[in-house]
Amino acid sequence: MTATPYVKIDREKSAQRIVRDVETLGGPEYTSSSEAICRYAYTPGYRNALDYFERALRELDFEVFEDPVGNLVARNRPAGEKVFGIGSHCDSNRNGGKWDGTLGVVTALEVCRLNAEHGLDLPLQLISFMEEEASGFGVGLLGSRIAAGRVNEEELRGIRALDDERPFVEHAREAGYEPERWQESSRILTDLIGWIELHIEQARVLQDTGRTIGVVTAIAGLTWVEVIIEGRADHAGATPMDFRLDAGIPAAECVVELERIALEAGGGAVATVGGFELTPGLTNVIPGQARLRIDIRAPVDAIVDGIVKRLEETAKQAAERRNMTATVTRLIGIPATPMDERIVRVLEESAKQSGEPYMLMASGAAHDTMCVADHAPTAMVFVPCKDGISHSPEEDADPADAAVGAELMLNVIVELSG
Amino acid sequence: MTATPYVKIDREKSAQRIVRDVETLGGPEYTSSSEAICRYAYTPGYRNALDYFERALRELDFEVFEDPVGNLVARNRPAGEKVFGIGSHCDSNRNGGKWDGTLGVVTALEVCRLNAEHGLDLPLQLISFMEEEASGFGVGLLGSRIAAGRVNEEELRGIRALDDERPFVEHAREAGYEPERWQESSRILTDLIGWIELHIEQARVLQDTGRTIGVVTAIAGLTWVEVIIEGRADHAGATPMDFRLDAGIPAAECVVELERIALEAGGGAVATVGGFELTPGLTNVIPGQARLRIDIRAPVDAIVDGIVKRLEETAKQAAERRNMTATVTRLIGIPATPMDERIVRVLEESAKQSGEPYMLMASGAAHDTMCVADHAPTAMVFVPCKDGISHSPEEDADPADAAVGAELMLNVIVELSG
Repeated sequence: MTATPYVKIDREKSAQRIVRDVETLGGPEYTSSSEAICRYAYTPGYRNALDYFERALRELDFEVFEDPVGNLVARNRPAGEKVFGIGSHCDSNRNGGKWDGTLGVVTALEVCRLNAEHGLDLPLQLISFMEEEASGFGVGLLGSRIAAGRVNEEELRGIRALDDERPFVEHAREAGYEPERWQESSRILTDLIGWIELHIEQARVLQDTGRTIGVVTAIAGLTWVEVIIEGRADHAGATPMDFRLDAGIPAAECVVELERIALEAGGGAVATVGGFELTPGLTNVIPGQARLRIDIRAPVDAIVDGIVKRLEETAKQAAERRNMTATVTRLIGIPATPMDERIVRVLEESAKQSGEPYMLMASGAAHDTMCVADHAPTAMVFVPCKDGISHSPEEDADPADAAVGAELMLNVIVELSG
Repeated sequence: MTATPYVKIDREKSAQRIVRDVETLGGPEYTSSSEAICRYAYTPGYRNALDYFERALRELDFEVFEDPVGNLVARNRPAGEKVFGIGSHCDSNRNGGKWDGTLGVVTALEVCRLNAEHGLDLPLQLISFMEEEASGFGVGLLGSRIAAGRVNEEELRGIRALDDERPFVEHAREAGYEPERWQESSRILTDLIGWIELHIEQARVLQDTGRTIGVVTAIAGLTWVEVIIEGRADHAGATPMDFRLDAGIPAAECVVELERIALEAGGGAVATVGGFELTPGLTNVIPGQARLRIDIRAPVDAIVDGIVKRLEETAKQAAERRNMTATVTRLIGIPATPMDERIVRVLEESAKQSGEPYMLMASGAAHDTMCVADHAPTAMVFVPCKDGISHSPEEDADPADAAVGAELMLNVIVELSG
């Protein structure tokens, strides 16, 4: 179906440039920790990372600017002309690694280099979104949220730094930005023909199934649910088994049952009980209350809704069977983001031509691409990371896989910008 | 089977004296908190409580003394002569009520009064054990442990005050005792024909089944077990259900299964998961480790051992089925204390003659009587407490029930001291 011939790159050369960029950005100038990559918005290491990308992009004759809150944008076409967007984020979590986010910006930069080397003259716009990881101000996807208009003035003014609790807008101003003009950030998403973000998978599916590339079909919707079981705290020794209202037992039944519900739901759904708290939590006191904190995700919202509904039924039945009560509360609900079918199809076609093993998959993790998807057709490319580890100094990935990713992105842009 | 005629007391009069004592000791002089009874060893309130009992016992012509660590002893026979022991403790937990322990000493005092009123001239020794609740020095049953020789010199020297971390022995010395002579405390248990402690039940079985009296047949053995499941922490969104080693699930299976194991074990066995901790405990991270803290009790040690064995099998199977590992560790093991069959039989006979509804039952909670049992035939009498609540300012009980208890104790001593 691709009319244009498939562009083959020198993957080894690309891998060498990618690993050089990643390793450089893993150096001491680019982190505020000696133990890990700790690089969040407006810190010196973060500033140095932006400068690194800006120098490299100016060398490629891109026009480089930062928007009013600090999203880095680099274009090889004047404002108003259509461009294909590529990029990710280069901030990290506080105890992070070299690859999460940064590999996506580095690979986008490599696509810009390949564009020049191959004389393709593709219309490109690279974005490195500010503060994806929530490490500086506690709000994830902050730069892409602002660009997408997913925040309002009041919310933005309420955001405070985790370090000193001073407002985000003060920090942004001190960093040289004009956060009061935040609404102008939306311009960075207006000219996009499409958008592709490359990211490490953050799980072990690609590694364990021997794939080089994951073509993302949707970013899963995310719902957090709290289940509270109310029983009665009593003396663990003096209270016979049949005189108890032990809140821990229906809660445990929910944990066991939730796994079955998620497996039965299928369609890439996942459900996790990440928190299980008993009150008072003493070995010799029967728990009077149990609280579960649950994360449910699926690429289709109806699947998430179905799981929440069955969980609620399970919790209420398990509690009532033992004369207790259960309350089930949705705390957060972010809808699923389907990727653009056309970009996904062309990505898959390119993946076939690349000769590398690939698979279609959903992203369970959130990404800036969710916000970009409000305004443009989007897709993502995943590459394997070692043992699925992310958000840790142990993070590792293979630059050769990212080079394949760059080749696919390049070919998709050739196809879709024609 | 009782050869001697059953002694009927004026229960209303006894109840009035009992409630007067309990209410007095619930006053502001006898606690260091304005919200609750907070009365632990060597505090002014505790000293005042001992003085209250000593005055009352001297009025009954008892010889009163305190042993080298502060156990209060009152006898109406010279040293070396056989006496029947009665009593409990009059310290409280830090947020305690008026009844736990104190009711046992008050009822023992009432038995001494009845002995005089009825001209029975029974050989009696009342003990109020020091620091049963562990609130001052973090070690439960401290006074009775010392008297029973369940501690050694090194352990005793290692005990420190929760308030200021200074050694127990320093506090004891400042309170006017001679803790270096602690081994002489054993003398208070040498002359005992038998021992009966009255205590509130600390559960709701007597209340909910309409009984006035519980005749304790055994104090349950207590074992604490820790179960640790080792899985693997992964991203809750990015990791598909079939790529997970979620430690929370086998742990939850243990919680559900443990209830079934305890119910099947029967014989008054109880098992409680009081603590359930997931690591890292974040909503969006699959738990890499789960830790259960479990309390198992039964009046017969073999039952506890059987439950621990089945729990261990369950945990290991649940973990292995999912490619995880489980370690099951016994943290504390205190053997069960059977009560003396003869005293129990005579108590039951007296209960029948009292006309009050009673039942035989095990004590799930630990009591000073466990230590006394090392050196003398022992038994306990339980009376109901409101809704099973203890260790709380909400604690409540009916002095009329304690008066029945005093009548039973009096009759048992008549029978067994003859």
